[in-house]
Order: sequence, then structure tokens, then C-alpha cells
Amino acid sequence: MMYQKMQARISGVVHTTAFEVFIIIVIVISAMGIGAETFALSPEFRDVMGVFDYGISLFFLIEISFRFLAEKNKAQFFKSGWNIFDLTIVVVSLMPLEYSHIAIVGRLIRVFRVLRLISVVPELRVLITSLFKAMPQFGYVLLLMFIIYYIYGAIGNFLFRDINPELWGNITLCMLTLFRIMTLEDWTDILYETMEVSPYSWVFFLSFIFLTTFVFLNMVIGIIVSVMEEERMKRNEVSLLDQQKDMAHLITVISALKTEVAALKSHVRAAVPEENKPL
Amino acid sequence: MMYQKMQARISGVVHTTAFEVFIIIVIVISAMGIGAETFALSPEFRDVMGVFDYGISLFFLIEISFRFLAEKNKAQFFKSGWNIFDLTIVVVSLMPLEYSHIAIVGRLIRVFRVLRLISVVPELRVLITSLFKAMPQFGYVLLLMFIIYYIYGAIGNFLFRDINPELWGNITLCMLTLFRIMTLEDWTDILYETMEVSPYSWVFFLSFIFLTTFVFLNMVIGIIVSVMEEERMKRNEVSLLDQQKDMAHLITVISALKTEVAALKSHVRAAVPEENKPL
Amino acid sequence: MMYQKMQARISGVVHTTAFEVFIIIVIVISAMGIGAETFALSPEFRDVMGVFDYGISLFFLIEISFRFLAEKNKAQFFKSGWNIFDLTIVVVSLMPLEYSHIAIVGRLIRVFRVLRLISVVPELRVLITSLFKAMPQFGYVLLLMFIIYYIYGAIGNFLFRDINPELWGNITLCMLTLFRIMTLEDWTDILYETMEVSPYSWVFFLSFIFLTTFVFLNMVIGIIVSVMEEERMKRNEVSLLDQQKDMAHLITVISALKTEVAALKSHVRAAVPEENKPL
Amino acid sequence: MMYQKMQARISGVVHTTAFEVFIIIVIVISAMGIGAETFALSPEFRDVMGVFDYGISLFFLIEISFRFLAEKNKAQFFKSGWNIFDLTIVVVSLMPLEYSHIAIVGRLIRVFRVLRLISVVPELRVLITSLFKAMPQFGYVLLLMFIIYYIYGAIGNFLFRDINPELWGNITLCMLTLFRIMTLEDWTDILYETMEVSPYSWVFFLSFIFLTTFVFLNMVIGIIVSVMEEERMKRNEVSLLDQQKDMAHLITVISALKTEVAALKSHVRAAVPEENKPL
Repeated sequence: MMYQKMQARISGVVHTTAFEVFIIIVIVISAMGIGAETFALSPEFRDVMGVFDYGISLFFLIEISFRFLAEKNKAQFFKSGWNIFDLTIVVVSLMPLEYSHIAIVGRLIRVFRVLRLISVVPELRVLITSLFKAMPQFGYVLLLMFIIYYIYGAIGNFLFRDINPELWGNITLCMLTLFRIMTLEDWTDILYETMEVSPYSWVFFLSFIFLTTFVFLNMVIGIIVSVMEEERMKRNEVSLLDQQKDMAHLITVISALKTEVAALKSHVRAAVPEENKPL
Repeated sequence: MMYQKMQARISGVVHTTAFEVFIIIVIVISAMGIGAETFALSPEFRDVMGVFDYGISLFFLIEISFRFLAEKNKAQFFKSGWNIFDLTIVVVSLMPLEYSHIAIVGRLIRVFRVLRLISVVPELRVLITSLFKAMPQFGYVLLLMFIIYYIYGAIGNFLFRDINPELWGNITLCMLTLFRIMTLEDWTDILYETMEVSPYSWVFFLSFIFLTTFVFLNMVIGIIVSVMEEERMKRNEVSLLDQQKDMAHLITVISALKTEVAALKSHVRAAVPEENKPL
Repeated sequence: MMYQKMQARISGVVHTTAFEVFIIIVIVISAMGIGAETFALSPEFRDVMGVFDYGISLFFLIEISFRFLAEKNKAQFFKSGWNIFDLTIVVVSLMPLEYSHIAIVGRLIRVFRVLRLISVVPELRVLITSLFKAMPQFGYVLLLMFIIYYIYGAIGNFLFRDINPELWGNITLCMLTLFRIMTLEDWTDILYETMEVSPYSWVFFLSFIFLTTFVFLNMVIGIIVSVMEEERMKRNEVSLLDQQKDMAHLITVISALKTEVAALKSHVRAAVPEENKPL
Repeated sequence: MMYQKMQARISGVVHTTAFEVFIIIVIVISAMGIGAETFALSPEFRDVMGVFDYGISLFFLIEISFRFLAEKNKAQFFKSGWNIFDLTIVVVSLMPLEYSHIAIVGRLIRVFRVLRLISVVPELRVLITSLFKAMPQFGYVLLLMFIIYYIYGAIGNFLFRDINPELWGNITLCMLTLFRIMTLEDWTDILYETMEVSPYSWVFFLSFIFLTTFVFLNMVIGIIVSVMEEERMKRNEVSLLDQQKDMAHLITVISALKTEVAALKSHVRAAVPEENKPL
């Protein structure tokens, strides 16, 4: 009983806006701490930051415990991706990695605490969810892109290996160089270098730029179209439903009218039989 | 009475196209003055420009006073953002800052008088209003972008600080460097520099470019979709209204028919009762 | 009579596909001649080219004369922008400018003969017409862009004039530099240069990039939306018309039915008056 | 009979998912082989790779033979573009080109075997088909672009030939330089170089950038619009069909009603003639 009472009280606290704002402030302070550390600071300040940092991790642990306690269905708690995301960050950031070899990993994970801002602000959660939804559409386009890169990479290695081994030395370097060409970053430097040896190498570069731009554009357009389709679908279903209701109503009214007329006809036919009619 | 007469006359002048064109010409001349000053000119010309400049500020003050007088509801005048915008620019550009320390601010504000072109040309006002409307949609995407920048900035500072302190020295420099990478401006120079020390640093750069491009694209697509939705909504309401009117008319017609049939039935039933019918 | 006969014959020739293909081939050959001249060639070849070139101009003159003769309504001929476009190019390219001071202009105009390809191929004419239609939509956005450039140009000149006069020396240079920054071409070189003197100058650069990108994006999105609106409008009118026809048909049918019922009622009422009814 | 039995068995094997996955694995291994060769490897490994490579080509030959045998209508097999695509790659990669002069071609063709991934994975086939569908829309825009490039190329050669022959030496170089300018790659270097000689050359560069960006944008927008139109067309036909069905149903119901009323009227008129009516 006492437990349920406590749960109700915690639940009341956890779902207030004030609590959310407070969490956001703590995350922002934690982020500012990480930022402050990037400036050259006195060792004293660094020590203070270490303690402060541990305190924030502890606070996050308590916050998640509270949210866990506030949840009635404990199993449900672990089904939410956001809860697992929060929990992972907090647990890892509390591990005593400071003096071990993987201290670097520990420090990096501390940085990811800033990501908790996304799990706390609902609007950002919506944004991330919509980004994840668009992901699968990218999948096959990325595969196609990879095939184009791989083929151009193999050809590039074959043709230009001896011209500049730093750019075309092996297929990994080639693909990095091709990505650089796709971003159009100093791509003419590479072009002019190869054109001195093989004057027709511009065919390789221009065809690659055209192909990747074309595939990329198609992907973007495809996504725009599919997102708009989805939106329209949703609304169309509503408007179609409305229209169908209207039609159904109309048909009901007319059917009622028909029944009325039929009743009238049978009445008249019964009351005034046709053999009655004066010839 | 005389005041009202004068107000009516001013109002008549202020709302003519000729007046508007005249204001636009004065703004353009004022802008050309500002432009002319950027060329190396004789001190005499600069003196003339100073006087000329003050004259334009005075002219703007008179113009706004006229518009204020022309306005019947004086409180309404200050509710328009454009009026306050105009007033602020004129008042500040009339302040005698020339010989003070903040003379620089004064000169800069004078430049902003060119912005008055926006408040005068109605088409530009529409454009700016529509830009402001799109603003809130950018808000949360910018926040998300900032989080991505912050995390990559902290990691970049952690990994590459010792390689090039000018680019990765602290989180502010890191974020500026990341913005440079997002604009793809000489980003391979930074990449090659870090790859000499940590060969797998391309993961950092490529993931950042992919992530920001992806978020940016989603934002753009999101805005396109939402703007088109809004447009459709407006028209749909109209077309839906039309349809509903059509339906309402149809139902009215059918109801009238039903009333007619009902009247007929009651008449027949009264005139020719069924017990009358020959068995 | 003979004239009309000839006109009919010419008109028959001018509108054949074979004639059009022939014109296209001549234009392409003419273009290839212009291209060939850009390579270092022997003076003999240049002389041959000169004669060949004059021949093509003559051919174009004859072609246009033919088209003029084929046109029945001579006044109509000069109302088509494409005809005037063709005529201007041919007339100017026939002027004996070779030995005069404006020989350069003559040579340049000869280059524009390639543009005749647009006036001959119908699909390209459609493309150009649609480009011109989109033009007015760009007008006010370009004006807005110009205002932003002008203000940033004046501020840039004011702030960075002494740092690099070649880039910020006067408002014209400033605006060219700003255009370079908008294209993100080596913009960080300019940024780093100014940041050494005034460390907060990144505000100037980033705000400019954000603002112009934002305005540009809005323009693009605006045009996409408006073009799609137009397309939809056209089709909607058709589908709305269809729907209205359907409704009108329905209402006609029901009204006829109502007349029928009314006639029936009046018949019954007349035949079987209610005072008849057995009380 | 035995042949048909075998065909049925092969057909059964060829169309299983397991077979498809197996083919994909072989292609990926083949691609990894090509990639591995780009790294500096021992001659022994290269020899092993040669044998391995030949084995894969043989495997592909067997696979295509199987698919040919599984096909009932042999003529149909050669009508599919994908089958011809597969066959060409395999046949060429089996040619004994190793020791001839065109060994290079042979090696390059081996790279294209990776493209077989596209013909095997159905989702990629769909993507490629949709890319090919968008192709014709690009055709005339590319022609227009080419005309713009050609004219600007001729003018550029004429104006800047003596300033930098490496960039503006002949029309081919000019067009490559213009493509570089369109990609905005170090375009200011070229601009500043020409502006030293002819200060107004920025008109050439800016007009070119504006024109190509404008045409490119229009093309992209045009494709977005046309793709969305197509999508809408498809669905509209469905929804229009639904609406027409609804209307048809309504009209049927009303017609039935009309028949009923007509029957009633004829009955009443027969039973209660108007001359009967008591005046």
C-alpha cells in the first residue's frame, strides 16, 4: 500500500512540466561542462568538473529510477527504445573507467549524454522518429551508390594507380577519393593531374559526377514524392470517408422515399383496383 | 475640425502610388549614397554626403509623422510591426552619434535604412512575412543540428586537438570547423591532416557529412510538404464547401420531393380509405 | 496567281520535317565551324572558314525569306518573337564588320547563331517559354537578395576594408566577395583572414550564409509549390466541371421526378377530392 | 520427356530464394576479389586470384545456362534486357584476352561483373528501371545545357584565350572549364585571373552561373512535378472510378424510384380518370 502511494506520488512528480524543464536544465549544464573542458583550464577546475560530472551521472540514474518506479507495468518500461537508450548512456557513464585503458571510451560516452536532450524534448523525439522512418528508403539507394563507387573505384585504381598512389593506391583510397569528387571538393586538381597522363580521363570524372548526382537527385525526389503520398493518403482516407458517408446518407434518404412511394402505390392499388375503372 | 480636414488631406497623399514611388526613390538614392561612400572619395564629397544623409533621415521622420497623422486610430499605428521597424531605424539614424564612441553603431544603423525598401514595397513585405512563418519549423531542426554539432565538436576536440589546435582547439573552434566541413569547403585538407595520425578518422568526417546532409534534406523536404499541405488545406476547404453545398442542395431537393410524396399519401389515404376497398 | 502558286509551293517545302532537319544540320555544321576556329588552325583554313561562314549566313537569310514568303499574313510574321529573334541574328551576322573596329561584336554575334537551334527545335522552344514564365517569380526574390547583398556589402566594406582592400575595397567588390561566399568557394580563407583582426567576424559570415541559403531555399520551394498548384488548378477545373455536371444531371433527374409527383398529386386531388372522404 | 523432367527440376532450383542468395554471395566474393587485387599483393596470390576469377566466370556461365534451360519459351529469354546484359558480361569475361593487347579491356569488363548485383536483386532492378524512365526528360534539358555551354565556350575562348590558354585554349577546354565553374570549384581563381585583364569579365561568370543554376533548378522542379503528376494520375483514376460508381448507383436508385412513381401515376390515372372528378 505504502509502495503504491509512493509510486503515485513519484508518478505525479515525474510527469510535471517542471520536472521536464529541470531535467533539460541539468542536461544543458552537463553539456556546458563538457564544452568548458575543451578550453585549456587549470587542474583544479578539472578536478571540480570530475566530481560535478559524477554527480550529474548519479542524478540521471536517480531520474531514471524514478521514471521506472512511476511506471506501473515494469515490462513495458524496457520495451521503449528511449528508456533503453537513456539507461545505456547512464550506466556506461557511471562505470569507473577513469584509470583504465578504455578511459577514452568512457569520456566519449559522457559526451553522448547530450543526446538525452532528444529523449527528453518530445518535438525532437518526433523528428528522430521521422528520420528513422525515412531510413529504409535510403537503403537500396545506398547499395546502388556503393556498387557505382566500387566499380569506379576499381577502374580508377586500374587507370590512375601510378599517377597518384596516395589517391588511387587501393580500392578503399579510391572510394574516399570518389566521395571527395562527389562533394566537388578540389576535384579539378585530381582531374588535371590525371589528364596530363591520359587526356581522356575527364570522361571518368564527368560520368561519375553525372551518375552520382543523378542517382542522388532521384533519391531525394523519390522521398519527397513518397512522403507527400503518405500525407495525402491519410487525409484522402478521411475525405473519402466523409464523401462515402454523404453518399450513404443520400442513398438512405432516397431508399426511404422509395419505400414510401411503394407503400403509397400498394395502398392505392388496394383501394382503387384497376377493374374498378370506368371504361 | 481643421485637424480632421488636414488628416484627410494627408491620408489622401500618403496612400497614393506617387507617394510610394517617391519614397522608394528616396530610399534608393540614400542607398546609392551609402554605396558611393565605400569608394575612396574626396573629403568635400564626404561632407556633402553627411549633410545629404541627415536630410534623408529628416525626410524619413517627416514621412513617418505624416503616416502617423494619416492613421485614424493612433494606437493601431504602434501595433504594426512594420511601423515600429520604420520608426526605430529613423530615430536611431537621427541620434547625434557622430562624435561619440558608438559612431560605428550609428553608421551601421544608417545602412539598415535600405531595409525600409522592404517595408515600403508590398510584395517584399509578403515575402518577409512568409519567411517568418517558415521560421518556427526551422527551430527544432536547428536545435537538433546544434546537438549533432556539439557532440561531434566535443569528440573532434578530444581526438584531433593535438593535430591542429587552430581548428580543434576548443569546442567553439570545433563547431566552426564542423560548419566548414558541412559546407564541404576544403574539408579534405582537414581530413588528410587527421588521417596521417589516426587513419580511421574518415569515419568521423563521413558520418558527420552524411548525418548533417540527411537532417538538412529532411528539413527541406518537411517544409516543402508542410507548405504544400497548407496550400491544399485552404483550397480543399473551399472545394469541400462547394461539395457540401452541392450535397445540401441535393438533400433539400429530395426532402421537398419527400414532403410532396407524403402530402400525396396522406391525401390519398384520407380520400380513399382502405376499408373502402372491395374485397 | 503565279505568286500565290509559288507561295503555296514554298509553304509546302518549309513545313516538311525534311526541311527542319536540313536547317538543324546547317546550324550544327555552322556551330562546328565556330568550334573548329577555336583550335590553332592554318590561315588557309581560316580563309575557307570565312567564306563558308558567309555562305551559312546567306543560307539563313534565304531560309527566313522563304518562311516570310510562306506566311500568308505578313504582319503576323513580325508578331512572333522567334521570327524577330531569327531575323536579328541573321541580319547582324551579314553586316560587313570584318575590317572595322567592332569586328569583335560581329564575331560574337556569329556565335549566337547557335541559338537558332532553340527557335528551330519545338521542344526547346517549349523549355525556353516555361523558363520565361518562371522569371517574374524570381523578380522580387532577386530584389530581396540584392537588398541583403547591399546591406552586408556596406557593413563588410566598413568592417573589413583595411584587412583586405582587394576583397572589401568598395561596395561592388564587397558584393562580388559576398557572391563568392554564397557559393561557399574558399570562403574560410576570407573568414580566417578577418578573424585574425576581429575574432567575432564569423557572425557576419555565418549569418550571411544562413540568410541567403534560407531565402534561396524559400524561393525554390515557393516555385515548386506554385508550379504544382498551377498544374493542379488546371486538372481540378476539369474534374470539378465533371463533378458539377454529375450533380447537375442528378438534380435534373430528381426535379423531373418531383414534377411527376406534383402532377400526380394534383391529378389525385382533382379526381378524388378530400370532401369525398367518408367521415 | 527426360528433357522436360530435367527442365522442371532446374526451373524449381533456379527460382528458389536460396539460389538467389547463393548467386549474390558469389557476386560479392567476386567483387571482393577485384577489390583485394587493388592492394599490393604477392604474385602467388595474384595467380590464385586468376584461377579463382576464371572459376567465377565459369560459374556465371553455368548459372545463365541453367536459367536459359529453365525458361520454357527460349525466344522470350533473349527479349529480356537483363538476360542479354548478364550474358554479355559473362561471355566477354571468359574471352582469353589475358595475353593480348586488349587485356586492359578484359580486366575492366571483369569489374562490371559487380553490376550483375543489380540484375539479381529485384529492388535494384526497380530503381534502375525508374532511373531509365526519368532519362528522356533529361534529354532536351541536356541539349539546352549543351547549347549554353557551347556559346559560352566560344565566347570564353574568344575573350580569355590569351589570358590562360590551358583553361580557354580551345572549345573543348573551355567547356571543361565551364563545367568546373558550374560545380563552383575554385571558380574565383579563374575569375580573378581574367578580371585583372578585363575588369568586367565577372558579367560572363555570374551570368553563366545564374543561367545554368536556373536551368538546372527548373529541370529538377519539372521532374518532381511530373513524377508527382503521374502518381496522382494513377490514384485519381481509381478515386474517379469510385466516385463514378457511387454516382451510377445513385442514378440507378433514383431511376427505380422514377419507374415506381410512373407506375403509380399510370395506375391512378387509369383507376381515377379526371373526367370523373366532381366539379
